[in-house]
Amino acid sequence: MSELRGACIIGQSGGPTAVINASAQGAIQAALKADCITRVLGAAHGIKGVLEDKLYDMGKEDPAELDLLQYTPSSALGSCRYKLADPDVDDTDYKRILEIFKKYDVRYFFYNGGNDSMDTCNKISKYMQKVGYECRVMGIPKTIDNDLFGTDHCPGFASAAKYIATSCMEVWQDAHVYDTGMITIIEIMGRHAGWLAGSAALATWAGFGPDLIYLPETDFDLTDFLEDVHRVYDKTGKCMVAVSEGIHRADGTFISEAKTSATDGFGHAQLGGLAAMLADAVKLETGAKVRGIELSLLQRCGAHLDSLTDVEEAKMAGRVAVESAVAGITDKMVAFACTRENGKYECKPNLIPLTDVANTEKKVPREWINAVGNGVEQAFIDYVLPLVQGETTAPKENSLPRFAKLKKVLTTDC
Amino acid sequence: MSELRGACIIGQSGGPTAVINASAQGAIQAALKADCITRVLGAAHGIKGVLEDKLYDMGKEDPAELDLLQYTPSSALGSCRYKLADPDVDDTDYKRILEIFKKYDVRYFFYNGGNDSMDTCNKISKYMQKVGYECRVMGIPKTIDNDLFGTDHCPGFASAAKYIATSCMEVWQDAHVYDTGMITIIEIMGRHAGWLAGSAALATWAGFGPDLIYLPETDFDLTDFLEDVHRVYDKTGKCMVAVSEGIHRADGTFISEAKTSATDGFGHAQLGGLAAMLADAVKLETGAKVRGIELSLLQRCGAHLDSLTDVEEAKMAGRVAVESAVAGITDKMVAFACTRENGKYECKPNLIPLTDVANTEKKVPREWINAVGNGVEQAFIDYVLPLVQGETTAPKENSLPRFAKLKKVLTTDC
Repeated sequence: MSELRGACIIGQSGGPTAVINASAQGAIQAALKADCITRVLGAAHGIKGVLEDKLYDMGKEDPAELDLLQYTPSSALGSCRYKLADPDVDDTDYKRILEIFKKYDVRYFFYNGGNDSMDTCNKISKYMQKVGYECRVMGIPKTIDNDLFGTDHCPGFASAAKYIATSCMEVWQDAHVYDTGMITIIEIMGRHAGWLAGSAALATWAGFGPDLIYLPETDFDLTDFLEDVHRVYDKTGKCMVAVSEGIHRADGTFISEAKTSATDGFGHAQLGGLAAMLADAVKLETGAKVRGIELSLLQRCGAHLDSLTDVEEAKMAGRVAVESAVAGITDKMVAFACTRENGKYECKPNLIPLTDVANTEKKVPREWINAVGNGVEQAFIDYVLPLVQGETTAPKENSLPRFAKLKKVLTTDC
Repeated sequence: MSELRGACIIGQSGGPTAVINASAQGAIQAALKADCITRVLGAAHGIKGVLEDKLYDMGKEDPAELDLLQYTPSSALGSCRYKLADPDVDDTDYKRILEIFKKYDVRYFFYNGGNDSMDTCNKISKYMQKVGYECRVMGIPKTIDNDLFGTDHCPGFASAAKYIATSCMEVWQDAHVYDTGMITIIEIMGRHAGWLAGSAALATWAGFGPDLIYLPETDFDLTDFLEDVHRVYDKTGKCMVAVSEGIHRADGTFISEAKTSATDGFGHAQLGGLAAMLADAVKLETGAKVRGIELSLLQRCGAHLDSLTDVEEAKMAGRVAVESAVAGITDKMVAFACTRENGKYECKPNLIPLTDVANTEKKVPREWINAVGNGVEQAFIDYVLPLVQGETTAPKENSLPRFAKLKKVLTTDC
């Protein structure tokens, strides 16, 4: 494969995670090192930054600050939820992207995101091929939801899982101090896949966690749920429940849907308020003191509880994307192929076609959820436990996080 | 002062904190070492454990597990919210306590709690003096609310403050990723005192935190609030707000009060749902995307973010209570006398009369809050910053917290 010289663009898309910046760091640092990459550009707010010609010159950043990206949650370059049209229907955006690519001689495009972002990647690559513009396009996975197809897991998931498990263990302690009844309902993110809610089971496995866990992979029945809670509560005077925000009735409607009507840029319903809603129902049913706790944004930005494994893998994913593209590869996403034999965990990068990933959701296997659908099996624990291992040594200033402070010099200002 | 030989009881009361067990550890370990203390008893669920003769023999615990108490949030012995009657009106409980004290030859009583618990301590001591039963009674402060009179600060506050500041910094990152409008409202505990809500300002001081902070020390006006938010939002497209759960109208009614009617054992109204309520109001006013986040129990049990200063001081408070009582002192609470001269922080124990502490609330000085009541001044930062310093080296198992596991052997089973 002949050497391809030119600039690269790195973009972040979709909901942020605690380690999406670690992937950005991995990609940026690898790109800055690559001889054939002439300029490293960061897209402001993902593909929107490309469309609007808002690109940061990453070569102008202080290397020490770039190195702090791995400990900085959320999307340092800015993110977006922007869905590109079908190019056969409306190619306006694609023409504009081509124009910008030509303007900066962009020959490498790295996009870090979830299913929708892989779809974006894929569409751009196909368009560039169609118009004969040589550009290598690589996807870097991320999503706390862990629902990307073709990879053992996604960067961002493990740190969120660790945050959830640790928080559940702590709340368990708090919810067990009085000798009076207490029911706690913890609402966890995950619209269609229960990887995060299921991870609350790590807390139970470690000795202090939810008695009941409900994933969106099974239908949710309020009557069954109230019976479950009542049974546990009658026995112990306490009950701790973890629910996915995406639990739904047999007809597919979300339990929380009545309360919200807003949708995000991709047309997904915005869920929330579920913990409070279930808490009200449980209070009415049991008469017990009930607390609904929504982990909300905290669970996806809690970098202080990052899994070191997650951070290292996230950096690796970014680095491998760049190194692979430089080596001539295109149209792939960096997936993870993992083994967990005899308690030994190994994770290797595995490049899979973007077309395979785009818009496919990976759910928790039904057999990893118990038969009645109110908990997970040991197979789930065996899967997630290696992923949450290790702590970072994130620097602090005055015992508070020291996040990366980027200059974000726009190319138009250079 | 002649040596007083006998057993001691250590109890935990009120809402738990991340370091109340550190104080228990300090007290238990000092008591186990003291020659004149013949037996160290832990009260199950505070004073209720005394009334019900549910006392654990702490001498039967594994010392290594006792040492883990400092890293274990919440009340390991169990807590209660039980208010003793005025002994002149109804002395039933006091007679029963005397009976139990006599049964185990209890000559030392250590009670770890907030204002109400110091009142309990004080009443018990006065009663014992009245009936001529020699028993030394010492209070050990705790409360995340930091509202105890006569002490620079309370164990538990700093770790909650650090959790709040760190979480605000992380949420700030998350709330600033899109180039679309976003308003975040963080609800923080603190019924009548704004120490915790004010601590969110540490995040702003560190570079990423709330634009507006509302404490219960000033009256809250919804119209002014909406104007404040609108002003910040119009300027930057973002706005982050921290509010105390206890914000109230000029007539004293809580903003959140309409939503809840439950009261705890002391007759305090249970607040909550405020973030969601304000989020609705702000959404209506601005049309922006608004997220209400309630830190709920997480902020008071987040031991993984403990301040080392807090943990060490909490242990010291427990130890000093025991050592002082052994030396002949009674009817005192271990307060902290601190200096912060030239950036050098020092904290020394200072024994103050229980009668001075009981049922008095210490609020944030008005001059530490800005004139319009939507933020705090540098004096607040200077006060709280030294308290959150240092990280613990809490042990982990499989990268999850390793909390103390006590045997809790009841004396009645010995």
